[in-house]
Amino acid sequence: MTRSERRAARIAVDLLGGDDAPAVVVDGALLALNADPVLRLLPVGPRAVLDDLLARLPAAHSDRVEPVPVETDGTLPVHAAIRLVSADRADAVVSAGATGSAVRSAVAHCGRYPGLRRPALAVTVPAARGPLILLDVGAAPDPTAADLVRHAVLGAGYAMATLGVARPRVGLLSIGTEPGVGDELRRAADRLLAAGMLPPDTEYAGLVEGYDVPVGGVADVVVTDGFTGNVLLKGIEGALRLGSGPGELGVGGVPAADGVPRAAALLGVAAPVVVCHGAANGSDVASGIGFAARMATGHTIERVAQMDRVFRELTRAPGGVRGDEATTGPAEDDRRRR
Amino acid sequence: MTRSERRAARIAVDLLGGDDAPAVVVDGALLALNADPVLRLLPVGPRAVLDDLLARLPAAHSDRVEPVPVETDGTLPVHAAIRLVSADRADAVVSAGATGSAVRSAVAHCGRYPGLRRPALAVTVPAARGPLILLDVGAAPDPTAADLVRHAVLGAGYAMATLGVARPRVGLLSIGTEPGVGDELRRAADRLLAAGMLPPDTEYAGLVEGYDVPVGGVADVVVTDGFTGNVLLKGIEGALRLGSGPGELGVGGVPAADGVPRAAALLGVAAPVVVCHGAANGSDVASGIGFAARMATGHTIERVAQMDRVFRELTRAPGGVRGDEATTGPAEDDRRRR
Repeated sequence: MTRSERRAARIAVDLLGGDDAPAVVVDGALLALNADPVLRLLPVGPRAVLDDLLARLPAAHSDRVEPVPVETDGTLPVHAAIRLVSADRADAVVSAGATGSAVRSAVAHCGRYPGLRRPALAVTVPAARGPLILLDVGAAPDPTAADLVRHAVLGAGYAMATLGVARPRVGLLSIGTEPGVGDELRRAADRLLAAGMLPPDTEYAGLVEGYDVPVGGVADVVVTDGFTGNVLLKGIEGALRLGSGPGELGVGGVPAADGVPRAAALLGVAAPVVVCHGAANGSDVASGIGFAARMATGHTIERVAQMDRVFRELTRAPGGVRGDEATTGPAEDDRRRR
Repeated sequence: MTRSERRAARIAVDLLGGDDAPAVVVDGALLALNADPVLRLLPVGPRAVLDDLLARLPAAHSDRVEPVPVETDGTLPVHAAIRLVSADRADAVVSAGATGSAVRSAVAHCGRYPGLRRPALAVTVPAARGPLILLDVGAAPDPTAADLVRHAVLGAGYAMATLGVARPRVGLLSIGTEPGVGDELRRAADRLLAAGMLPPDTEYAGLVEGYDVPVGGVADVVVTDGFTGNVLLKGIEGALRLGSGPGELGVGGVPAADGVPRAAALLGVAAPVVVCHGAANGSDVASGIGFAARMATGHTIERVAQMDRVFRELTRAPGGVRGDEATTGPAEDDRRRR
């Protein structure tokens, strides 16, 4: 499909998200409009910021920008932006603000998949031996083993849609590859995954280590809790900045590669929600907007949702594979924990 | 104190530990003997490996090597090596084998500090803005908040002894620096540390992030659970290998710096136990042996033990600072969990 054939994506952009907002977000919005001649933007923010953006907008682009003012009454622009998606006025949201705010408003306004306790934030790591999906990197810092399995399923669907992998290999991040290593959470998740909890067209690749994330090659999807994933991503980012000097880095600090999004996607909610790095510059924000547009027009989230549906049917059907959470579903597991 | 003035350290070396054992361990032992003219070694392993080592040993060094054969009845050389320390035949142990084996036999033969649930494995990261201590990196994958506080104390004593820091700043690894971020474990540990649980001459520097470990500058000691610490260390290692090509890397893959040990130390047991990277080469093993000798002659473990004693007195004394574990001590906490 060429660019002119596809339907124009309508992207809501949080003008106040990010360490250097609104300046870098305004820059990013203008860059994104230049880069994609059919893109439509709904910038969301205070009127003064919108006026600045409109003043810098070339006349040729003005009919593709619909400013959405947010009163300064405490409503976060990211919440207003996500409401535009739930009201079908936009197809996707981009924010470089706090992950927690984006997750909370996405869950509130777009809803979670049935029985899903927490969405997951997924990044594409352009590892040396080929890109891989790492999730969760901060949305679910305290998952159960059942959550990790569910996130693995979402990551597999996402890998199929965005990496074009027909049969994703899913690795569980641990601290060794021999059976029985790791903490209690990992030992429980490994048992579930090894017992065949993943849907068809996916493969459990077993335990992988921290080293494997920047190096790649052993899995297409690496699943972990949001605490470890976030620490690992930022550690890789710091190390690569030291190793390579101040270059252009993707999300997670891995050197930006062509076609690899420099932004994370929230999986487990009905709409494409893209979260840029808090330290994003204008080019990073433009990359995030372009990625959100590709997710919207490429039906990425529909593919993830389809994978999740297959998993729910498999684990609930009589005779299907049952783990300790599969018969009751993660929702019950959630209640037990609280 | 010059080298000739200090007492010769007697180092027990596990010949079978490590991915490339025994070859790299034999190489490392010979390199270490060359580098330190007063070092005494007790290589521990099967007789055939000992014979190989002795055949390659220059005659001038032979009186400083006391081979300790281990029968091939299933006794791991690392266990036998640690028994040499508890019998006062050696001052420290070096192994590049599995961390779990070293920890178990150190606990069994040397004992833990009173009330300590799990020892911690500490590495010195030669971060860009100066070296820091990261712990735990694999010995305690499932700590409680009280364990993290106790490990922070051990790390502070270790930083004083090995980095020469008079008043170590202790950071708690998390996924943001705003209050309330992180998982349940980190929120609980942050409350304890912020409430003044650390001994005098230490400072709680608050939350730090994955980025801060390779970059440095914000803390002298970074404390985390053994799962996250291990994943982070290996992630940094992988990233730096990509960034810098196959160079000489320290433990954790951070480029080796002069005077920074390329090995980890087990803290919380009475004897110096040094664990080299499983992928250590001969030079790494020699560095680990030299580090173990410095620990033994420099009374590093005594300094760590002293710090731990101050902490125990402070937290148990009437009117002392009490956290949720301080009144009963971690030993009770341990029993509660089992």
